Amino acid sequence: MMMKDVLNQYPRSVIKKAAQIQALFFDVDGVLTNGHIHYDEHGNEWKQFDVKDGLIIGYLKKAKLIVGAISSRESAAVSKRAAELKFDFCHQGIVDKLTVLEKLAEFHHIKKKQIAYIGDDLNDLGVLRNCGLSVCPADAPVYIRKRVDIVTAGGGGSGAVREVGDLILAAKGLLDEVLE
Amino acid sequence: MMMKDVLNQYPRSVIKKAAQIQALFFDVDGVLTNGHIHYDEHGNEWKQFDVKDGLIIGYLKKAKLIVGAISSRESAAVSKRAAELKFDFCHQGIVDKLTVLEKLAEFHHIKKKQIAYIGDDLNDLGVLRNCGLSVCPADAPVYIRKRVDIVTAGGGGSGAVREVGDLILAAKGLLDEVLE
Amino acid sequence: MMMKDVLNQYPRSVIKKAAQIQALFFDVDGVLTNGHIHYDEHGNEWKQFDVKDGLIIGYLKKAKLIVGAISSRESAAVSKRAAELKFDFCHQGIVDKLTVLEKLAEFHHIKKKQIAYIGDDLNDLGVLRNCGLSVCPADAPVYIRKRVDIVTAGGGGSGAVREVGDLILAAKGLLDEVLE
Amino acid sequence: MMMKDVLNQYPRSVIKKAAQIQALFFDVDGVLTNGHIHYDEHGNEWKQFDVKDGLIIGYLKKAKLIVGAISSRESAAVSKRAAELKFDFCHQGIVDKLTVLEKLAEFHHIKKKQIAYIGDDLNDLGVLRNCGLSVCPADAPVYIRKRVDIVTAGGGGSGAVREVGDLILAAKGLLDEVLE
Repeated sequence: MMMKDVLNQYPRSVIKKAAQIQALFFDVDGVLTNGHIHYDEHGNEWKQFDVKDGLIIGYLKKAKLIVGAISSRESAAVSKRAAELKFDFCHQGIVDKLTVLEKLAEFHHIKKKQIAYIGDDLNDLGVLRNCGLSVCPADAPVYIRKRVDIVTAGGGGSGAVREVGDLILAAKGLLDEVLE
Repeated sequence: MMMKDVLNQYPRSVIKKAAQIQALFFDVDGVLTNGHIHYDEHGNEWKQFDVKDGLIIGYLKKAKLIVGAISSRESAAVSKRAAELKFDFCHQGIVDKLTVLEKLAEFHHIKKKQIAYIGDDLNDLGVLRNCGLSVCPADAPVYIRKRVDIVTAGGGGSGAVREVGDLILAAKGLLDEVLE
Repeated sequence: MMMKDVLNQYPRSVIKKAAQIQALFFDVDGVLTNGHIHYDEHGNEWKQFDVKDGLIIGYLKKAKLIVGAISSRESAAVSKRAAELKFDFCHQGIVDKLTVLEKLAEFHHIKKKQIAYIGDDLNDLGVLRNCGLSVCPADAPVYIRKRVDIVTAGGGGSGAVREVGDLILAAKGLLDEVLE
Repeated sequence: MMMKDVLNQYPRSVIKKAAQIQALFFDVDGVLTNGHIHYDEHGNEWKQFDVKDGLIIGYLKKAKLIVGAISSRESAAVSKRAAELKFDFCHQGIVDKLTVLEKLAEFHHIKKKQIAYIGDDLNDLGVLRNCGLSVCPADAPVYIRKRVDIVTAGGGGSGAVREVGDLILAAKGLLDEVLE
């Protein structure tokens, strides 16, 4: 069972929280990407995403979870990736992320403790403190890493979203099923 | 002898399997690339390949092995790289990779146990379970790493294909010969 | 308190120097970027920046520190990033960085010991020897690393500027305040 | 003295060889770059170079050493970088690198033992075996690493050329002088 390979990596308290999750929300830069922004000489910008993150998002949606991004920046590359992966929403240019989280919970008729959130910086702290499973990538600043339920083994854009998706599906007993 | 430098890294059971291989097939994203997808502001996409992978593929073809890619995504960058390296085939947009593997074995008159396959994710599991030498890169998820014959030392797009090519040529006693 | 998480990483002598800082200046390539230059087939060039660096620069400016870049190269991508982050200045194509530093100190009515500088190479040595807090990234050459007050844990473009910004704000007792 | 910081890292036999060097030649992909090739959807290609490598090449030329590249591939990005750094030559599309090395030695009236060469793959072996100081980056295949005088600490495009340039200048007693 692949489920066991995943769950063996986490304490029971985390698995219990993960089993209740109905929605996975995340920051973009530093979480869905590695936090790098690339500019060329003509004002073009590009971002780097990870194929493994994309695959688990597909399985999360198949399992009826709500998936979406809340970013303080704005980027057409992010919109393209969100459309490709069929995010339920992609809110960009957000200053107050906690208010957005609360409205999303209300809109989707879920409680905040049913929402997992992955963020990596100061502007994510409000949401990280108020969600059901708070996660940051391995390369987040020390004062973020000390304030979350899980620090992923991989960095942003290199497994962070994938690890949380695997954990949620495994904790809900859906990882092996979803593959059928 | 360079052959010994390579074979010293593997157990006898793996070398025995590698000596029988007549074809090397692989997934693209996360195997021939590092699994990263880069989008710019105008919808352009690019991928990262490795020169060292390309060099060994040339030697594999010189040694009459069949080499090709089976990818679930589609990309013009991949087609360009496949043409440059003279892959025997490059099947993109594939949902059921195992069926493709079986047809390829039939078409090329080889047995599945004569095919080595490198994959890194859930949609590669069917093929990994049914080929002669199953391989995943170091950065594949834990439940893939536990289900293959070899986990490479390098990650996808950073030595994974190269290591398998070196192993196959060395196990067949062709590594030093091919250099003449 | 996040302040403590940061200050626990540094000796008292460094914290004392950091508390006096009124300005953060830095080299660009290898400090604000990872030192990589990317060229395409048509003469276009791009550079890689880090979102986490950008966020702390915003907080430094909110705390009334002077922030700017002194680079020996010239690049439109750097100008774009400097404008986006509202640097107080962005001097490019500079051969003699020490003279620029002295003019900047005079112009802004601050002493050199109130300036922190992050540089990674031989052409930064003059400034590193004459500022109030000298810093280089983890991936600078050995003879630079031996001549600075702090070597950051992260490399250029991957946390170097962020770490120094966090340190300065924490040493001045502003890290937790700035978040309000 | 910065010279000592550098020389402390090498055995006497290597320093003796380095002191005799009059020319530094190198492969491009995997040495001057990290070996990655990036393709976009429209056939454009780009490569990644390192600012630190560029700076030491400037100092090597100031010290009257001959500097140039011998590559089996061809790329406009490489030509641009070679022109920018004022390489003495940039030979691309080369199949037989050893013959080119011999012609270059004759043309520049130097002996092969006065040439340092950095290469990372099978097509560099001929030159690596016939030059005065043979070097490969940390990420070269095992059978290359076992056949050179020095394996650099950094990978290709991340310090490999820089380390060799620092070593040569330090071994010749020119590192501190060149800075004046």
